[in-house]
Amino acid sequence: MSELTPLSANKMHGGWQKRFKHASQATQCDMTFSIFLPELIDTKKCPVVYCLAGLTCTDENFTQKSGAQRIANELGLVLVMPDTSPRGESVPNDDYYGLGQGAGFYLNATQAPWSLNFNMYDYVVHELPTLIAENFNVSPDSAIMGHSMGGHGALMIGLKNTHRYASASALAPIVNPSEIAWGQKALTAYLGSDTSAWQQYDSCYLMEHAAAQTNKIPLLIDQGAADEFYPAELQFEKLQRIARTKNWPLSATLQTDYDHSYYFVSSFVEKHLRFHAKQLS
Amino acid sequence: MSELTPLSANKMHGGWQKRFKHASQATQCDMTFSIFLPELIDTKKCPVVYCLAGLTCTDENFTQKSGAQRIANELGLVLVMPDTSPRGESVPNDDYYGLGQGAGFYLNATQAPWSLNFNMYDYVVHELPTLIAENFNVSPDSAIMGHSMGGHGALMIGLKNTHRYASASALAPIVNPSEIAWGQKALTAYLGSDTSAWQQYDSCYLMEHAAAQTNKIPLLIDQGAADEFYPAELQFEKLQRIARTKNWPLSATLQTDYDHSYYFVSSFVEKHLRFHAKQLS
Repeated sequence: MSELTPLSANKMHGGWQKRFKHASQATQCDMTFSIFLPELIDTKKCPVVYCLAGLTCTDENFTQKSGAQRIANELGLVLVMPDTSPRGESVPNDDYYGLGQGAGFYLNATQAPWSLNFNMYDYVVHELPTLIAENFNVSPDSAIMGHSMGGHGALMIGLKNTHRYASASALAPIVNPSEIAWGQKALTAYLGSDTSAWQQYDSCYLMEHAAAQTNKIPLLIDQGAADEFYPAELQFEKLQRIARTKNWPLSATLQTDYDHSYYFVSSFVEKHLRFHAKQLS
Repeated sequence: MSELTPLSANKMHGGWQKRFKHASQATQCDMTFSIFLPELIDTKKCPVVYCLAGLTCTDENFTQKSGAQRIANELGLVLVMPDTSPRGESVPNDDYYGLGQGAGFYLNATQAPWSLNFNMYDYVVHELPTLIAENFNVSPDSAIMGHSMGGHGALMIGLKNTHRYASASALAPIVNPSEIAWGQKALTAYLGSDTSAWQQYDSCYLMEHAAAQTNKIPLLIDQGAADEFYPAELQFEKLQRIARTKNWPLSATLQTDYDHSYYFVSSFVEKHLRFHAKQLS
């Protein structure tokens, strides 16, 4: 079990916003994450909502700008904000903002030079939850949400692990990385040019090919209609169409005038946390 | 009347978060401010709450991190976030974070090299409200709040202009700049070493020497007990003691475990906006 090194602790909305560093097995480097602990956690095991951020972000964007902690404290939810990739001088990088540090895409890379460190899928799905369970008074129940690349992470991870998460939701998510410029660049670098290796990380593919007996966890998506990356990179309608054919419970809304920024995220984070709290209760 | 140049507009919590630049008479340079327009403003003149930020901040700290817009939209309040000083290559500066750009202290400087530009008092009290009234559908009613140096600004401006503001409030405010290190350094530079010139910008002095017939507008203060600048620089108890002797309505609370950060600000901004909305209604 890896040791948590405390980096900061700030009282917030009745609970505590904390930040830790630890040596990661999955990514072979030090990882930083943030966690919000509602005041209820002193008396009761609380469920966890994982909050995955987008390209170029760290754990701190959601922490500082989403306003999620107010609602999390009211609902008794722990929020865990991972970083978006491995980082450090020994970790490979790329000048392009959509690849390398800050752009882990929540997958396990198989290609050099990425494969040693870029295993964010294992980190988020396995290593981090174990660490959280060992160090905090959490229940085994969890949900997952994210923004943009983090929305891809949340939906993809949720669809691959319907026994682990009560629900998954996304704000302005990438749903079909195999078919868009951001995704193709990253998937080619991390997984190679054989596109059959990409399918396991593509939410549209995963839902379309889900086994009949799959536990169809509820999904929620909000997308800003004035988002500068919509619809070129963000195509929630594709997932919505598949959900209809597969009878998968997905509620998706196009929000007039909203863009891709954290002003949008902060406007709808309450809706998403209340959605998860309902599934987790 | 100076022209407003739009810099950005983001839909947020049902309203619009906007940012503008304009040539300022008071500060003799271009100034940037942010404004939140609640959706109610399309049908009704809305009152304004001025939100003053602290040392090193711009208009964007409160805009991005406070979460105030959610409540402002609900209450039908316009929020105006000015910058904390004049800025630009032609504007004097100092290496010390508490003087020069980012540290205007909401006063009118009389000393070289500051006096040409550092007239944030005139900017916030006169020029900016005129500009807001000319360009937006606002009512004549307003209130003022701030954080740290901005808390000093809000209380001091409120105490000097009890006919202009319905109420004033502060999070972790400087209340007695004449007696603390931050204040003495800034007041000496901006106003000279004759301390009698400082009194007009010192909330403790202003309240203590308020005329008997002064309109005693309600004041609200919250202060984190774990604030790293408390009590050395932040001494709300001094103002609280004067308020008791003068029978001035001031509600002040020391908040256990909270520090000086925007995590603290975001935790109490709702309380402050509801306080102002009550006075403005």
